[in-house]
Amino acid sequence: MCRWLAYSGDPIPIESLVFRRKHSLIDQSLHAQLGATTTNGDGFGLGWYGDGDDPGIYRSVHPAWNDRNLRELAAHVSSRLFFAHIRASTGTPVQETNSHPFRFGRWLFMHNGLVREFPRVKRDLLLAVDPALISSIEGSTDSELLFYLTLTFGLEDDPVAALERMAGFVEELGERHGIEHPLQMSVAVTDGERIIAARYSSEGQSRSLFFSTDARALKQLYPDIEELQQLSDEARAIVSEPLGDLPGAWNVVPESHIGIVQPGQDELRPFNPRRE
Amino acid sequence: MCRWLAYSGDPIPIESLVFRRKHSLIDQSLHAQLGATTTNGDGFGLGWYGDGDDPGIYRSVHPAWNDRNLRELAAHVSSRLFFAHIRASTGTPVQETNSHPFRFGRWLFMHNGLVREFPRVKRDLLLAVDPALISSIEGSTDSELLFYLTLTFGLEDDPVAALERMAGFVEELGERHGIEHPLQMSVAVTDGERIIAARYSSEGQSRSLFFSTDARALKQLYPDIEELQQLSDEARAIVSEPLGDLPGAWNVVPESHIGIVQPGQDELRPFNPRRE
Amino acid sequence: MCRWLAYSGDPIPIESLVFRRKHSLIDQSLHAQLGATTTNGDGFGLGWYGDGDDPGIYRSVHPAWNDRNLRELAAHVSSRLFFAHIRASTGTPVQETNSHPFRFGRWLFMHNGLVREFPRVKRDLLLAVDPALISSIEGSTDSELLFYLTLTFGLEDDPVAALERMAGFVEELGERHGIEHPLQMSVAVTDGERIIAARYSSEGQSRSLFFSTDARALKQLYPDIEELQQLSDEARAIVSEPLGDLPGAWNVVPESHIGIVQPGQDELRPFNPRRE
Amino acid sequence: MCRWLAYSGDPIPIESLVFRRKHSLIDQSLHAQLGATTTNGDGFGLGWYGDGDDPGIYRSVHPAWNDRNLRELAAHVSSRLFFAHIRASTGTPVQETNSHPFRFGRWLFMHNGLVREFPRVKRDLLLAVDPALISSIEGSTDSELLFYLTLTFGLEDDPVAALERMAGFVEELGERHGIEHPLQMSVAVTDGERIIAARYSSEGQSRSLFFSTDARALKQLYPDIEELQQLSDEARAIVSEPLGDLPGAWNVVPESHIGIVQPGQDELRPFNPRRE
Repeated sequence: MCRWLAYSGDPIPIESLVFRRKHSLIDQSLHAQLGATTTNGDGFGLGWYGDGDDPGIYRSVHPAWNDRNLRELAAHVSSRLFFAHIRASTGTPVQETNSHPFRFGRWLFMHNGLVREFPRVKRDLLLAVDPALISSIEGSTDSELLFYLTLTFGLEDDPVAALERMAGFVEELGERHGIEHPLQMSVAVTDGERIIAARYSSEGQSRSLFFSTDARALKQLYPDIEELQQLSDEARAIVSEPLGDLPGAWNVVPESHIGIVQPGQDELRPFNPRRE
Repeated sequence: MCRWLAYSGDPIPIESLVFRRKHSLIDQSLHAQLGATTTNGDGFGLGWYGDGDDPGIYRSVHPAWNDRNLRELAAHVSSRLFFAHIRASTGTPVQETNSHPFRFGRWLFMHNGLVREFPRVKRDLLLAVDPALISSIEGSTDSELLFYLTLTFGLEDDPVAALERMAGFVEELGERHGIEHPLQMSVAVTDGERIIAARYSSEGQSRSLFFSTDARALKQLYPDIEELQQLSDEARAIVSEPLGDLPGAWNVVPESHIGIVQPGQDELRPFNPRRE
Repeated sequence: MCRWLAYSGDPIPIESLVFRRKHSLIDQSLHAQLGATTTNGDGFGLGWYGDGDDPGIYRSVHPAWNDRNLRELAAHVSSRLFFAHIRASTGTPVQETNSHPFRFGRWLFMHNGLVREFPRVKRDLLLAVDPALISSIEGSTDSELLFYLTLTFGLEDDPVAALERMAGFVEELGERHGIEHPLQMSVAVTDGERIIAARYSSEGQSRSLFFSTDARALKQLYPDIEELQQLSDEARAIVSEPLGDLPGAWNVVPESHIGIVQPGQDELRPFNPRRE
Repeated sequence: MCRWLAYSGDPIPIESLVFRRKHSLIDQSLHAQLGATTTNGDGFGLGWYGDGDDPGIYRSVHPAWNDRNLRELAAHVSSRLFFAHIRASTGTPVQETNSHPFRFGRWLFMHNGLVREFPRVKRDLLLAVDPALISSIEGSTDSELLFYLTLTFGLEDDPVAALERMAGFVEELGERHGIEHPLQMSVAVTDGERIIAARYSSEGQSRSLFFSTDARALKQLYPDIEELQQLSDEARAIVSEPLGDLPGAWNVVPESHIGIVQPGQDELRPFNPRRE
C-alpha cells in the first residue's frame, strides 16, 4: 500500500503539494486515512519535468517525513509536471530501485496496489516483457513489472490501450494460476505532456483516487482563497487522498475508470482490461 | 518519543523479545499504544553484552520494521544482557550517532522523553559536561547529553545518585531559564552487570515503564506455557510497553521510581532529583 | 571487481581477518593491489555460521572502511566459518540485495568477476533458472544469477559439478551471442561445512585467488608468532589477496582450479566447465 | 582531506562541472591527484542558489561516484552559483550533518583541511561560538565549528575580516594547547552574491587551490572550443584541483591568499590571521 500524487499546470514548487497542505503527502506518510496501511515509511520518490524532455528522479529508502534532502528539493525545485510517491512495501525490499516513480526514456510510472501472489506469477510476468526491455528492469517489485508490461503493450503509442492490455494480461495470467482477484491498482503514467491515471481492481474495490476540480471553477468558487487564485487555469492534481477538506475541491475517480489530463479538454472514461 | 526494552538473564536470542512477541518492539515501531506518537520510525539501536566486558552496538537510521540487518542480528546473536531502542525524533536529525543506546566504555544508556526547550539550554548542558568527556559526544540529541551529564555526575561510582544529580541539574537549569517541566524521561543504564532504570518527569506524568514479574513466579503461574518455562530464574525485562497481555506478567514502574536489576535481589525505590 | 575472503576453523572473531591484518580486507577496500580497481567502496557483506544450520548475513551499501556497524559486528561476533566481501560495482546499483554473500537456505555464495555483456544475456540466464527458485532472486547482479544457476544445476547435491555446469552454461550461452570470454570469476560457496572455491575465466586469466598454508605447517614454520600459534590445526582461509606478506603463508590457486576446504583432507583439482 | 569546487556565472547545469570534465569532481572522488588521500568517499554535498535568496542543499553519506540521486540532481538543476564538496573524513562520523557545505541563512561554507588535535580543543572552540548560534550546530566536525566561529566573528558584515579573525583565534587557541600547526584549510564561503575563498595553513603549506582564468580571456585564447565559448563573461570556478589540463585555464591561489569572486572586478589579496 502506498500513496501518490501527480500535478500538471504552471510550474509550482514541489513542496506546495508535497508539504504545505493540511493533509499533504508527507502527512499521509504518517497518517494515511483511506489506505490499507496508515504508515507509508518504506521509501519515497519524486519525478519531475523541467526544461528538457527527460524527467529527473529522486528516490530514497528513508521515510519521507524526516528526509531533509526531500524537503530541500521540494522547496528549491519547481516543475510544470511532477509525480510524488510514498511507499509501504508489500514484501519486496526497501531499496531505491523499488521506489516509485519508475522511468523509461521520457516516461514515468507509479502505482498503488499489488499483483496478488506475485511470487507465483513473477516468472511469467518477466517472460511477457519485451526481451529488449528486460535488462532495464532494476528492482524487484510487481509495480515495476507492470510498467514494463505496459511498455511492452504499446505505452508509447497508445497509453490507454496499453494499460488495458496490461491489466487484461495480468488478470488472465492470474486466472490461469487460480488466483482470486489478481490485480489491484491505482496507477499513473506520463510522458511529460499528458498524465494518464487509472483506478481498477479485479474485485471492483479499488484503491482510492481523486482528481482536483477544474482550476477555473475552483477560483470562482473561492475568490477569497489566495492560494487557489494563484493556480493556473490548467492546473490539475490527481491524488490517492484529498490534500485537504475544502468542499468541492476533490472528486472521486469512479471505480474502473481512467482519466487523461492533457492540454485542452481532460477526459474520464471507463477502464476495460483487454485480453489478447 | 521512543520505545525501548532491556533484558537481563540467561542468554537468549535477541529476536525473542524484539520480534517474536505479540506486541514486540517491532510491532511498537508501527503501532505504539502508550506513547505520545504511534510511529517510531526514526532509526533504532541495539546494544548487547557477549564474552567480553564491552558491549557491541548496532545503530541504524532506518525504521526497525523493515530493516533486514536487524532481523539477521536479532536472530543470530544471543545475549545475557541487551538494550533495544526505537526512535521517534523530537527534532534532531535522524543519524546513527543520534540512535540509542549510547556507549561509553562498558556502559550503555538509552532514553525515552526529552529535555524541554532543548535548544535554549543546550549550551549550558554542554558546559556542565566534564571537559575530558566532551569530545566523546558524537551526536546532537538531548538524550546523549543526559548520558554525559550522568557520567560527569559519577555514573561509574554510584549510578542511582548520578542519575538523581543529573535530573536535579536539568531541572534547576530549566527553572533558571523559566522552562516549565524541564525533564521528561524513562531511562536505562547498564554496566553489563546491573540494569538501572528510572521513570521520572518534572510534571509527575512520566512516560510509561514496566518490569516483568519474577521469572520463578511466572513459571509457577503458567506451568503450561513452554516459552515461560524456558526462562532462567533471574530473567527480567524492563519495557516501555508490555510485550503481550498475559495477566500478571507485567508491572508498572510507579511514578518517580528507580529500579535496579542485579544478581541477587532486585530493588525498586523512589527517585529523588538532587540539586548541588 | 571485488575482493573477498572465506575462513573455516575454530571460532575466531571476524575482525581478526577483516580488520586486524596489515593488508586486511578493509585495507583492500581502499587499496587493493591485485584487482582491476583499487577502490572497492560499493557496499560489502558478511555471512557467518553460528550455532544453528543457517548463516546470518549483514549487508550494507556503505564503503566498508568507515562503516561502524561492520566494525562492531566484526569485533563482537565470532564464527567457525564466515565469508566477507567488498564490492566494486560493474554497473548494477549499489543496494543491499546486490551485496554478497547471497544466501539460499544454509548456502552462501560470493563472487569476484563478471558475466561479460550481462544485459544482452540476462534474460536467457533468468530463463535457465529453476522456475521454483526465480522469485527468490532479490537483486539485479550477474553474480546472484550465477548463484541461482548453480543451485539449478545441483549445488546442494554436488557442488563441484554444479559450478562446472554453471560455467559451461554461461560460456555456451555467451558463444551463442557471439561474446568473447563470457565468464570471469573467482567464486566461493559453502553449506556451513565445506567451502568450495573456484578460480576460472574463459580467457584463462582469472582474478587472483590464494589459500592459506596448512595451519600445522605454519605453526611449525613460525614457532614465535603468537597469532599463528593460536590458530586451530584445521584453520584455513581463502582470499582474493594475501592478508600480509609472511613468506610461505599464502599459495596461489592455479588457473582453472577448484579447491575444497572440508573436515579431513582438503582438495585442489582442475576446474572443467561442463556443457549439457 | 576533501575536494571541492565553487562556480559563479550564468546558470549552468551542475553536472557540467561535477561530472562532465576529464578530471571532474566525481573523478577526484576516486582518483584525487593533489590531495593527502586519493579516495574521497565519505559522503558529499551540493549547495546551490536558484530564484530565492536561500540556497538549497543536498547532502549524502554515500560516495559520490555511484550516487544516482546526485547524478539526477546535477543533470536536472541549473544554478548561477553553486558549491560541491566530496568528503574524506579525518575521524568524525560519516553522516549528512557532517557533509559540506554547511548553511546558515543565505550563507554556505565548505572546507578542506583540519583543525589539528581537534578533540583537545573542541570544547574551547564551542565556547567561543556566539551562544545564540550554538544550538544551530548539527554535526560534529571541526569544519562546521570553523563556520560558526566565522559567523561569530562577523561573517555577515565583513567576510574577509571574519575569516582572518577565525584563523587567528584557532591558531592562538592551538598555541595555548601547545599544538604545532593548528590550522590547515582551503575554505570557501558565499552569500549567493560573492564567493570568498582562502588558502591558508599555520605551516605555510596549504591544501591546493586554483581559480579559473577570466572567461573573456579564455574564450579569446581558445576560439575553437565550443564549451568555453558558451561560458558567460563573468563565469569563474574555484577548485581544489584543475578539472582538466588545458594550458592557461587554471591558476594557483598563492599560499596565504584570499580571493573574492564578485560582480565587477574580482580580487586576490594576502590572507593575514588576526588575533584579538
